[in-house]
Amino acid sequence: MKSRIGLFAGDPSGIGPEITGKLLALSEIHLTAEVGIVGGRAPKARAGFVSAEAGAYCLDALRDAARLLAAGELDAFCYGPLNKQALKAAGMRTEDEMRFLAAETGHAGPLGEINAGPEFWTSRVTSHVPVSEIARRIDGPGIAAAARLLHGALSRTGLANPRIAVAALNPHAGDGGTLGREEIDVIAPAIQTLKDEGIGASGPHPADTVFLAARKGQFDGVVTMYHDPGQIAITLLGFDRGVTIHGGLPWPVTTPAHGTAFDIVGKGIASHSAFREAFLLAARMAESRNPDEANRVMYDEKISRT
Amino acid sequence: MKSRIGLFAGDPSGIGPEITGKLLALSEIHLTAEVGIVGGRAPKARAGFVSAEAGAYCLDALRDAARLLAAGELDAFCYGPLNKQALKAAGMRTEDEMRFLAAETGHAGPLGEINAGPEFWTSRVTSHVPVSEIARRIDGPGIAAAARLLHGALSRTGLANPRIAVAALNPHAGDGGTLGREEIDVIAPAIQTLKDEGIGASGPHPADTVFLAARKGQFDGVVTMYHDPGQIAITLLGFDRGVTIHGGLPWPVTTPAHGTAFDIVGKGIASHSAFREAFLLAARMAESRNPDEANRVMYDEKISRT
Repeated sequence: MKSRIGLFAGDPSGIGPEITGKLLALSEIHLTAEVGIVGGRAPKARAGFVSAEAGAYCLDALRDAARLLAAGELDAFCYGPLNKQALKAAGMRTEDEMRFLAAETGHAGPLGEINAGPEFWTSRVTSHVPVSEIARRIDGPGIAAAARLLHGALSRTGLANPRIAVAALNPHAGDGGTLGREEIDVIAPAIQTLKDEGIGASGPHPADTVFLAARKGQFDGVVTMYHDPGQIAITLLGFDRGVTIHGGLPWPVTTPAHGTAFDIVGKGIASHSAFREAFLLAARMAESRNPDEANRVMYDEKISRT
Repeated sequence: MKSRIGLFAGDPSGIGPEITGKLLALSEIHLTAEVGIVGGRAPKARAGFVSAEAGAYCLDALRDAARLLAAGELDAFCYGPLNKQALKAAGMRTEDEMRFLAAETGHAGPLGEINAGPEFWTSRVTSHVPVSEIARRIDGPGIAAAARLLHGALSRTGLANPRIAVAALNPHAGDGGTLGREEIDVIAPAIQTLKDEGIGASGPHPADTVFLAARKGQFDGVVTMYHDPGQIAITLLGFDRGVTIHGGLPWPVTTPAHGTAFDIVGKGIASHSAFREAFLLAARMAESRNPDEANRVMYDEKISRT
């Protein structure tokens, strides 16, 4: 039996509706999973503009998805680009849509965004934090939580024993403590904790070379200490195909990494390639929940070691 | 008349000698410039090991180069990979070889490493500094100095009005001050100062997308606030061809971005491509010091706008 994947087009003012049309025209989508369209008839949105009405429509769709996931009527959820300003104007009180879905499904526990590029995945210990506060916000439990989310998400694709590189905080991984002691005092002990749990963690690796190593196939995932390093790497290596996964939720939830692209709405030039990757990834993660399922493949063959 | 470029093979324990051999076998090297070999007969070094004797030999070569540059007998200098431990063991008291050359030539004034990748160049405001101290080390004069070094080095290749992107410090460029105020309080005023001087500076640009824009040809150089972002981008985009330029010295001084690669010494597999780029770049920068010189081309055609 095929997995049931909820699909929501995203904010109707953006490129979501047009890339959803392109996505649904692909036969592989329907061969891979049973598609359940989430979201009723969209309001008449002004293309390319933030609107609270569009935001309210999106929040309703996210609520529907949460209800269907919690009820077991959907196995996974994939949604098109949303606009945070529109969601906030419509009354979203959580920091983002990942936490909105968690609240709507009553899920508690660690959550974290995972960025899936074509060559490796990343998670991060801190995210929307000023650089001046990063060092004091990093601790063992935070590092372990980010690594476990990444390990869990990669495992869910069917990959056995994913290799998780933990990036350093400081330049040259602190250079033996002369450029900062966090690698020695905080990061290395957290890696040991992860190893003791059986997670294939290593590091701390210098952040300016770990992505090259991952790209060469030495790691399946990289845990970064803060926002920009992983984002720079993923952006440079796979911007057109990047996928964001909501790590920590009990169901696979994915979305393309790009935004609503207000500047090109309706021009027919928006690419559906990241949306396609997001959908196929949700489907594969849903399939691997069934241990008898043979069809276990990675998002990208390049990082598959099976 | 061709420029006179000093060439030093670098640490004899590393891959320097073998890639120098490969370099000197290229006819384009000799067509481009007059090569002056710097460094006498190398000591018998144990391949792949740090040695103070090799370090002393390298310091002597750097002293020779400094003397020849200051005397006007060389127009530029290009050297193979050095080993910092060996240099320190041999008595180098400056932080690095760039400052050693400055001290030997009696040069005062701002210095800064510039990283030249095939698609864009970077300089940085802080470098070997713990992440916990970055924010307090960033100020207007530091940002302006890093941007001027980059502007000067790019201009020296013959590029008129280089476009310099100044990267933000905080994620999402501080998101209007909610994720840190350095963009508003420090970086934006420094950019205005640069514009007032006639430098084509813009920003602050979010660090996780500015390199993609530079790669697409929107900028010739990117000034970063700290070590890792630029290094991640350059490493991912051009590791095999990256060049380091000593910005701020009165003469072009270049070296390949890679190190001595002790693990592959003598195996015949070391690539001379970055060394070749470093040599050709030194030659082009030397040529542009003569305003009548017609042969003004960028390191890489992709970022040439002439």
